[in-house]
Amino acid sequence: MARVYNFNAGPAALPLPVLEKAQAQLLDLAGSGMSVMEMSHRSKEYAAVNDEAEANVRKLMSVPDDYAVLFLQGGASLQFAMIPLNLRRPGKTADYVDTGSWASKALKEAKASGAISVAWSGKDENYMRMPRESELKLTPGAEYVHICSNETIGGVRFPTFPKTDAPLVADMSSEIMSRVIDVKQFGLIYAGAQKNIGPSGLALVIIRTDLMERCPEEVGVFLRYSTHAAEKSLYNTPNTWAVYILKLVTEWMGTLGGVAGMQKINEKKAKTLYDTLDSSDFWRAPADRESRSIMNVVWRLPSEELEEQFVSESKKAGMVGLKGHRSVGGLRASIYNAVGQDAVDALVGFMKEFERKNG
Amino acid sequence: MARVYNFNAGPAALPLPVLEKAQAQLLDLAGSGMSVMEMSHRSKEYAAVNDEAEANVRKLMSVPDDYAVLFLQGGASLQFAMIPLNLRRPGKTADYVDTGSWASKALKEAKASGAISVAWSGKDENYMRMPRESELKLTPGAEYVHICSNETIGGVRFPTFPKTDAPLVADMSSEIMSRVIDVKQFGLIYAGAQKNIGPSGLALVIIRTDLMERCPEEVGVFLRYSTHAAEKSLYNTPNTWAVYILKLVTEWMGTLGGVAGMQKINEKKAKTLYDTLDSSDFWRAPADRESRSIMNVVWRLPSEELEEQFVSESKKAGMVGLKGHRSVGGLRASIYNAVGQDAVDALVGFMKEFERKNG
Repeated sequence: MARVYNFNAGPAALPLPVLEKAQAQLLDLAGSGMSVMEMSHRSKEYAAVNDEAEANVRKLMSVPDDYAVLFLQGGASLQFAMIPLNLRRPGKTADYVDTGSWASKALKEAKASGAISVAWSGKDENYMRMPRESELKLTPGAEYVHICSNETIGGVRFPTFPKTDAPLVADMSSEIMSRVIDVKQFGLIYAGAQKNIGPSGLALVIIRTDLMERCPEEVGVFLRYSTHAAEKSLYNTPNTWAVYILKLVTEWMGTLGGVAGMQKINEKKAKTLYDTLDSSDFWRAPADRESRSIMNVVWRLPSEELEEQFVSESKKAGMVGLKGHRSVGGLRASIYNAVGQDAVDALVGFMKEFERKNG
Repeated sequence: MARVYNFNAGPAALPLPVLEKAQAQLLDLAGSGMSVMEMSHRSKEYAAVNDEAEANVRKLMSVPDDYAVLFLQGGASLQFAMIPLNLRRPGKTADYVDTGSWASKALKEAKASGAISVAWSGKDENYMRMPRESELKLTPGAEYVHICSNETIGGVRFPTFPKTDAPLVADMSSEIMSRVIDVKQFGLIYAGAQKNIGPSGLALVIIRTDLMERCPEEVGVFLRYSTHAAEKSLYNTPNTWAVYILKLVTEWMGTLGGVAGMQKINEKKAKTLYDTLDSSDFWRAPADRESRSIMNVVWRLPSEELEEQFVSESKKAGMVGLKGHRSVGGLRASIYNAVGQDAVDALVGFMKEFERKNG
């Protein structure tokens, strides 16, 4: 068995030690005689998994006590629907910052169920940069301001976060726990797990507890955050396998210095790649320098033919996931937490050779 | 490593050959160099998993072509919310049959978002039986009739299904693919996977395609069935691991004669257990005979002390999950598809010895 260098945008690489541990425990978790998948979510064995996963998140991100940490299903896409249902009261509006494909999806879902206002859009500039704080047209009295902190497809991220009167709500799916952030700057943070912290089928939600009280009555039971917060994410059967893997991933992050340690590793990986892209005119990184993502690095070659050739030859060299998203074309390397410096070095080695032959 | 006899109500036992295969493939699915958890849900490798899982469901349940088969997140509990949102148009009502804990939960969620009518309730009889068709008070013009076909907690099931003018909607979480049913009798069938067909974090939904057109506009994008049907359950990132395990479980069922084969095995297991319960006054099975579930077998002992002793001693004998649900007490053995006759025989052996000592 040869493992590939995995640059997938999501679902994406998981740390090898995590996979090996999951494999070893697959038929028997901690002497229970069962797989974690076969355990009641009400058992003390699973309660330990759930509690440790939450404790790891709280520790790694320094989550203050007045925030709930929730493990929900439905990915970020269900959050696109739940956020306006829970936080936007009848007759009120919410501000959305349109910075790319994912921000647009969130905006579209919120628009279907009520009023929104677009505080800024990068569409006319092909989403190649994030806005400056002074460019945002915020609505007085808006219920919240929604941003996507890192756009997976465009490869741009907010270098710093805007200060807003309304609570800031951020989709951090493609950069959660990849750099140090201050949770207190946000009213709600959410992330699909399948890029940086686990497998698909799980969304991490960190919400300031007072915001949960806004939810109108007609929203029902399942779709309100307070239902899940009151039961420590065990109102209904959670995705127990994914929470277990998240627990292993967050443990592994602890051994590398936590989020600060990951940030250092991630910045070095990104620098290695951007330095190569900046070293010659053969490569072109379209994202604005200030907004460059350290998780999703997007670039173009002189022609689409060369781009196709790059994808095909890199695959033969044991590197997968380098084709850019179909909506923007080009090439992309997603270098999430579980993608090591070794993978980036191998990629850069391949790139130099590719340029020598085709440049 | 010693595997236990697993009588958990859900999440529950998985077939050992499935776990062993998942373990063998955990670091590398089919020579891809990646775990299934690390693959793009848009890759051809994952498309094969998704397609095979759907094909297996269609084949095992003989699903007609005018029904969509969906793999969704959020479990049956999100379905409790999605069903009324999608199928009950403004100003209309829906009939709910209240047969126990799970039917009540579905009913409560539907009530929060609009009008419902309770067509029958077994509450005053402690939910110990299912209604006869003639007892149902159905509302003319109701949008659908909702039933829970098998109540996990009470251990009762519909022996046959009522014929209704409005589409019949059934929560089959705790008996899906355990007995042969005619899909055409239903407008919508749904099931959390974590009892009979896979791990938690996945709901199987089988819906007659014309019903998807009812959904009001304000429901948005993610919460409508048509969104997921149009994209073959790939509108957003699905729980890829759970779909993969479901594919393995349904393959395994194929080797045992499909649903008809499982039904035969399940009926024998249930008979073994009920025969023991009926053999002496030491045991008491409270469910009405006509309504006895072949998946969840519930019984009482002469005293609560003996029940506690039974749970504790059975655990020492390598049997887990036999404590009844906290809301009804007593004992319960969930004998889903993956629980073999060997496990039931071991349980019955233990029961006879327990009776000899304490009867």
